Amino acid sequence: MIDCGEAAQVGFARQGLNINRLGHVFISHNHGDHIFGLPGFISTMGLLGRTATLHIYGPEETRRLLDVTLQTYCTNLDYAVEFHPVDTTRHSLIYEDRSVEVWSIPLAHRVPCCGFHFKEKPGLPHIRREMIDFYGIPLAQINNIKAGASWTTADGTIVSHERLTTPADPPRSYAYCSDTSYLPELAETLRHTTLLYHEATYPAEFESHATKYGHTTAPQAAQLALDAEVGKLCLGHFSARIKDETAYLAEATAIFPNTVLADERLILHV
Amino acid sequence: MIDCGEAAQVGFARQGLNINRLGHVFISHNHGDHIFGLPGFISTMGLLGRTATLHIYGPEETRRLLDVTLQTYCTNLDYAVEFHPVDTTRHSLIYEDRSVEVWSIPLAHRVPCCGFHFKEKPGLPHIRREMIDFYGIPLAQINNIKAGASWTTADGTIVSHERLTTPADPPRSYAYCSDTSYLPELAETLRHTTLLYHEATYPAEFESHATKYGHTTAPQAAQLALDAEVGKLCLGHFSARIKDETAYLAEATAIFPNTVLADERLILHV
Repeated sequence: MIDCGEAAQVGFARQGLNINRLGHVFISHNHGDHIFGLPGFISTMGLLGRTATLHIYGPEETRRLLDVTLQTYCTNLDYAVEFHPVDTTRHSLIYEDRSVEVWSIPLAHRVPCCGFHFKEKPGLPHIRREMIDFYGIPLAQINNIKAGASWTTADGTIVSHERLTTPADPPRSYAYCSDTSYLPELAETLRHTTLLYHEATYPAEFESHATKYGHTTAPQAAQLALDAEVGKLCLGHFSARIKDETAYLAEATAIFPNTVLADERLILHV
Repeated sequence: MIDCGEAAQVGFARQGLNINRLGHVFISHNHGDHIFGLPGFISTMGLLGRTATLHIYGPEETRRLLDVTLQTYCTNLDYAVEFHPVDTTRHSLIYEDRSVEVWSIPLAHRVPCCGFHFKEKPGLPHIRREMIDFYGIPLAQINNIKAGASWTTADGTIVSHERLTTPADPPRSYAYCSDTSYLPELAETLRHTTLLYHEATYPAEFESHATKYGHTTAPQAAQLALDAEVGKLCLGHFSARIKDETAYLAEATAIFPNTVLADERLILHV
């Protein structure tokens, strides 16, 4: 989960999602609309019988609310909460497992803030089943071939790895950038990201507000998406003062057509 | 407002209520399900332009989350938040204005906890308009007569206050008791309360749980309502482990018929 505003757990419950399947929470910065749901999340996880460690990543400042939660409200949890401070000034690897890497993205807001870049690790190539059948290759060899081996037939002919497989799917990636001033230089970091979520607090006419409060306009976010050649852009974090959200979409798609607006129950397939 | 669980502000917004009409918040005890909505409430009030002081009443322990909120998240509010610690061991007057008194009710829970008793002050008697017309009493005298004066006619006849008025409506009262063990002795404090909200975390069969965790069963709450001769009983704070809430109502109405179950958008007229 990335960020945890108030009532995030209500959203999970309403969609029938089990919050205890969450292992890792990434908090971008220590503003209430990005963290006030965390105490309730931690409490409810305990009430629902969690035993697995919960890992929380965020700027050092986010530790404050976490400490109050653990020292005052959740003193008898049956699970551990482990906090991993993130240096918001650096683009660095903060989490890694077999299938994914998570990198911090330095952002520019009124308080220390970072985005998160989820990068799928390259997968294995696909086996061409008809070639396996044709050469009578035993199942026990499949993993070797996936890993890069070629095959030598009984008469000594070498069938190359490339003939036996089709290339792996290109690795997918998701980047989350909120809250931040417009940072054109992020294009390099974000290049070819499959899905980019970027804040667009204001339409173009409020660009001075965006600059003043450390936010981005819809056209600026779209320009970044264009420069970074991302696959799709999702805009969010709209100002409550803007009643009509169609301006965001119109301004963004004029620059980067493959743009959608975030919404509370929006599901995007990457 | 009494207590402020997570997403309380969402409930206000959904019902079109303006949170900035709130002047006073009463917190019963320092458990997350009764206070985790407070940081968001205080933030949003500020974003919506509040300038009036917000008064918060609660056990000393509740100051902790308030301090973190004000020192870390809401450092630039245009309004003051004033905390009034409540001694949860005493039945005492904690707030008073022209029309209402609020008293603390000592409760017994796992942490310091109190209920709140809202008592309308006695109103003024109603003027009998036909008597005013009959005696030709000038409008300027109405307030005096309401306040207890009689009227002397031109020929010296005294018309008593009682003949000119009908009695004031009986003052209304509302008591909120959550979370607490069953305290039969509360019947005296709560006598003739118009509406009593009382927790009933468990049905009768879980009475040992109630005792262990400082809660009350539905029959116990109903017995208290009967003993205190309240007008109406509203039960709430049902355990999440009880899927069917009809048991609460059946058990309570068998003892105290005028019982309803609390629900998220329930409105009761006192």
